[in-house]
Amino acid sequence: MDKTSQYISDYVDLEMRTLERFDKQAAAEVLGAILRAYEAEGTIYVCGNGGSASTASHMANDFNKGISEYVQKKFRFYSLTDNVATMLSIANDISYDEMFRFQLQGRLRKEDLVIGISGSGNSMNVVNALTYAREQGVQTVAVCGYSGGKIKEIADVAFHVDINNMQIVEDVHLILNHLLMNVLQRLWNIPGHNM
Amino acid sequence: MDKTSQYISDYVDLEMRTLERFDKQAAAEVLGAILRAYEAEGTIYVCGNGGSASTASHMANDFNKGISEYVQKKFRFYSLTDNVATMLSIANDISYDEMFRFQLQGRLRKEDLVIGISGSGNSMNVVNALTYAREQGVQTVAVCGYSGGKIKEIADVAFHVDINNMQIVEDVHLILNHLLMNVLQRLWNIPGHNM
Amino acid sequence: MDKTSQYISDYVDLEMRTLERFDKQAAAEVLGAILRAYEAEGTIYVCGNGGSASTASHMANDFNKGISEYVQKKFRFYSLTDNVATMLSIANDISYDEMFRFQLQGRLRKEDLVIGISGSGNSMNVVNALTYAREQGVQTVAVCGYSGGKIKEIADVAFHVDINNMQIVEDVHLILNHLLMNVLQRLWNIPGHNM
Amino acid sequence: MDKTSQYISDYVDLEMRTLERFDKQAAAEVLGAILRAYEAEGTIYVCGNGGSASTASHMANDFNKGISEYVQKKFRFYSLTDNVATMLSIANDISYDEMFRFQLQGRLRKEDLVIGISGSGNSMNVVNALTYAREQGVQTVAVCGYSGGKIKEIADVAFHVDINNMQIVEDVHLILNHLLMNVLQRLWNIPGHNM
Repeated sequence: MDKTSQYISDYVDLEMRTLERFDKQAAAEVLGAILRAYEAEGTIYVCGNGGSASTASHMANDFNKGISEYVQKKFRFYSLTDNVATMLSIANDISYDEMFRFQLQGRLRKEDLVIGISGSGNSMNVVNALTYAREQGVQTVAVCGYSGGKIKEIADVAFHVDINNMQIVEDVHLILNHLLMNVLQRLWNIPGHNM
Repeated sequence: MDKTSQYISDYVDLEMRTLERFDKQAAAEVLGAILRAYEAEGTIYVCGNGGSASTASHMANDFNKGISEYVQKKFRFYSLTDNVATMLSIANDISYDEMFRFQLQGRLRKEDLVIGISGSGNSMNVVNALTYAREQGVQTVAVCGYSGGKIKEIADVAFHVDINNMQIVEDVHLILNHLLMNVLQRLWNIPGHNM
Repeated sequence: MDKTSQYISDYVDLEMRTLERFDKQAAAEVLGAILRAYEAEGTIYVCGNGGSASTASHMANDFNKGISEYVQKKFRFYSLTDNVATMLSIANDISYDEMFRFQLQGRLRKEDLVIGISGSGNSMNVVNALTYAREQGVQTVAVCGYSGGKIKEIADVAFHVDINNMQIVEDVHLILNHLLMNVLQRLWNIPGHNM
Repeated sequence: MDKTSQYISDYVDLEMRTLERFDKQAAAEVLGAILRAYEAEGTIYVCGNGGSASTASHMANDFNKGISEYVQKKFRFYSLTDNVATMLSIANDISYDEMFRFQLQGRLRKEDLVIGISGSGNSMNVVNALTYAREQGVQTVAVCGYSGGKIKEIADVAFHVDINNMQIVEDVHLILNHLLMNVLQRLWNIPGHNM
């Protein structure tokens, strides 16, 4: 087998071995946190850097459109990674580390939820967002990898992919998102969406 | 004078002649609508296509970061043009014309405001958003050009740039945004921001 | 076991069973297509709707920044889902189905590659982009699910996740992206990035 | 007259007085730089922070779609402010100040052009992008306000709005964009787009 084929196999194997250790209990807790905010008509803020910024935007779509299309009561996800002008003016005028906290300051309500996504768990702008939410008595969820980092310590609920490989970590974060979506589709009998 | 120089002069002249007819009364009414939503802690949704999508995003930044940095009570602007995954899944699965209405359905609250920006005044996705807001008893603002189109008819307040030139129309729409920002900076004595 | 726990387990199981059938040969072919464009200094265009739009943007990041940070010769990925003003002006003025083709017309070069991502394989704007590329003699890759749809027929290389579950399909598409990234990191001995 | 009306009038007046001093010569030079890149089939990169990020994205739309719809040979604008995942991974992993330079490194070609937009003229990420372009022997344009700042010094061509008011500066930057678009529409006899 050539190297490319070998490395492809290695990656798929590592993905499967990681999924065997998928933290189902934590996934259920994340769902619980989301549903508490949903029931209370709170806003669910999501943030992250790089690939995790994509995951944050993707997650907003899956709940705001994907699930919400089929239910009366809509989700109110808000990805803090979507308005480029706002992100870059905060970073340029204040600090990159304040990019997400700034968007929450003075806007968080008790019924809200803040989800921070960071592979290392240590991106300062995500740490700051979760720290601020916690100070305000607002629910927090950490979606992390590697050692879990600071956000694992800070958050009320942590979904931790315990592996030192950023690609696998980001894969499993998106899997978490889709798993939650799929579970809700089944729990709520959304037609055509059972497995 | 060569053609390029001539056309440059023509454009600047047309801009100035258009600004002489700037509808100050309508600008004051738009500000009034924004402040009503602000006072009531409502969300101010903004939408538009093409260049007007940029203006919508830009406007969210100018109020959510620009003004809000200096005041205790924050603006809650939400540009419906920011989450690409959501926009493209609505357009792909449902209809492009529902791109903005879908995001409002089941989420609008009485204290909110919906601002639709359309040069022609007739972009169906903007028309649909304003129509829906009106049906829900929510305040609406039309920011338009050309003949004003359908959104001028639908909205509670219309800021109409009465000229058949899309570039000038879009310029004056951004000027409206910045003018409102500047007026608030002066009314609220935001330091370093008087003229 | 309660329903939530059951459904969470079901999802992880289905993910793993799908990964057992991961098409490694197709993944190697996608990598081959990407490397041909890379060697020829071509641009690699990526497009998709909804969650696949996120994947397209994410993919551009992983190659343009992730891999390119460590190599002299940079990737030239271009996600057709990134400029909101352009997408919405094409959709508003011309047609939603032309959103991606328009951005390619008159710009594609022989050395380029167009990657279309569509769960169903039938999103018309993605179909049109691949059709156009093929007409221009430019390489095409289809990243699809379900039955593979039209894009599987059109493209030179198809990576097909053969399952009727949109969430799993999108998961495996992102896994493909990260797998390709990881394989390159190992092939090119990028430090700190072996498995 | 009440304060609001007064401040609205003041803003419109200041806009007009600023437009009287609009630098037509510089506008013609910016157009010249754009057309040189266009003729040579170069890519025209645009960048900026905050509202200037919106202007960069808007500009890409106006040339890539607006003008290009009507001409055989297409513009190749590329806004460095469009791919959120890329921007935030550069900022998070490397430095916010490298956000734009990173995207250019190893990708610039002699026939390209880099346009940096910064109200103050001193945003480090814009300064770095123009500095890098200059080092590579690539054309540069500065679009600035206030004192012009560093980018005015660095760039081959500077369009400077000589006023200490960020709102007016940003207005005139968008006016420049639309003016250039309008001049091209007239020079190239694009139907329905004369004044």
